[in-house]
Amino acid sequence: MNAIAKTVGARVGVLDVGVAGELERHPLLRAAKVRGGTDDLSRGPAMTREEAARAVMAGAGVAEELVESGGVDLLVTGDMGIGNTTPAACLISAFTGRPSEETTGRGTSIDDETLKLKVNVVEEALELHAPDAEDPLGVLAAMGGLEHAAIVGVILTGAVYGVPVVLDGVVSNSAALVAHALAPQAWGYIIAGHRSAEPGARIALEHLGLEPFLDLNMRLGEGTGGLLAVPLVQAAARTLAEMATLEEIGFG
Amino acid sequence: MNAIAKTVGARVGVLDVGVAGELERHPLLRAAKVRGGTDDLSRGPAMTREEAARAVMAGAGVAEELVESGGVDLLVTGDMGIGNTTPAACLISAFTGRPSEETTGRGTSIDDETLKLKVNVVEEALELHAPDAEDPLGVLAAMGGLEHAAIVGVILTGAVYGVPVVLDGVVSNSAALVAHALAPQAWGYIIAGHRSAEPGARIALEHLGLEPFLDLNMRLGEGTGGLLAVPLVQAAARTLAEMATLEEIGFG
Repeated sequence: MNAIAKTVGARVGVLDVGVAGELERHPLLRAAKVRGGTDDLSRGPAMTREEAARAVMAGAGVAEELVESGGVDLLVTGDMGIGNTTPAACLISAFTGRPSEETTGRGTSIDDETLKLKVNVVEEALELHAPDAEDPLGVLAAMGGLEHAAIVGVILTGAVYGVPVVLDGVVSNSAALVAHALAPQAWGYIIAGHRSAEPGARIALEHLGLEPFLDLNMRLGEGTGGLLAVPLVQAAARTLAEMATLEEIGFG
Repeated sequence: MNAIAKTVGARVGVLDVGVAGELERHPLLRAAKVRGGTDDLSRGPAMTREEAARAVMAGAGVAEELVESGGVDLLVTGDMGIGNTTPAACLISAFTGRPSEETTGRGTSIDDETLKLKVNVVEEALELHAPDAEDPLGVLAAMGGLEHAAIVGVILTGAVYGVPVVLDGVVSNSAALVAHALAPQAWGYIIAGHRSAEPGARIALEHLGLEPFLDLNMRLGEGTGGLLAVPLVQAAARTLAEMATLEEIGFG
């Protein structure tokens, strides 16, 4: 991700909203830990509504600062989190109504047996929480991860400032469903960077009506797919702003 | 194309190998006109073998200079030419054996009737010239355009120097078939930038076993699709060169 960020001229920052353990200080690391990991979403709510809201606000705060004082005019989401494609699948099922077998993927290349277990976990969670898409924060608290919540905050804040937000993979895509459910007006500021190989990614993006720029069969997350789309966004903006029409050059 | 080149940090140069008319001098324009347009390929050879070879050498000369003295380590092909998707379709049929209805597309959005005419022209040309894929220069002379020939030279020269060549749309793709037929060893230096909406592009790339980085439903040519792939090539190179493995950072 750092190698790609350098290539496209992006600045990287890391927000700790929920790592289960202490992280060493680092100039690019911002500590805003809400809690050290979430609870088992197949047995109860992953977190409280208040915790989910705090994680959303942590993401919103970073995005606000980047735009307000950092001169940032394009945001790219990314994530690192252990097991975080499971809550992504839960959120995607909750907001699209699609069954767990369709939204659940192999994440870090798990085998058939583990995939079956994962599908069952997602299914159980959906039965346990009976998610109500009309209560997006409740769904996020019950079945989301802290990183999903933080990305929701980044997306909503981008929209508030009119700054486009490029989504990376399936975790970002699932967060976009939450953000869109909270504030449908955010839609116009969401750009799908890359279609993750995770099956839920395609479902989430189709539900949102977003066509990704890239489909490179990547599944790493961390923002890699979103970052690769940055030059395409810049080229599109530059073309709109700078390209002469045929009329302007006398062929009209 | 200029707007996109600026975005990705590419230098643009234009080589006139066959414009039917005089062009004003321009610092970025290199004049190497072989002839002012080609003959009607449905009635006879588009050009002589010698003319085709001269156009190939004109492209080769530019590529050589860019690499030798310009410090260029990535080449992107592009083209402007009136009616040049017709010779592209001819070349693609000639080297893949696929029928003209499959390789011929709408180019600049021609209507159904004109498309039918265009398919017939390609079909007639294939019957007239009975192209022999074992004689790539002969096929190029009979059914190619001067820009197709120049791009063949760029591709072959890139391969000679070990400099990757990013293909743009269907004209570049058809030229890559010629280059590959002339020197199969060039294959490893050819990168498919963008899959043009022209149907022949998909056929040519499949024949070459190349998967394009981008599929943005563009069909402009001029190098636009190839240029958009440049940051992806750079990111891939940087990732290979700079990314630490898990072993290197102590997780091995």
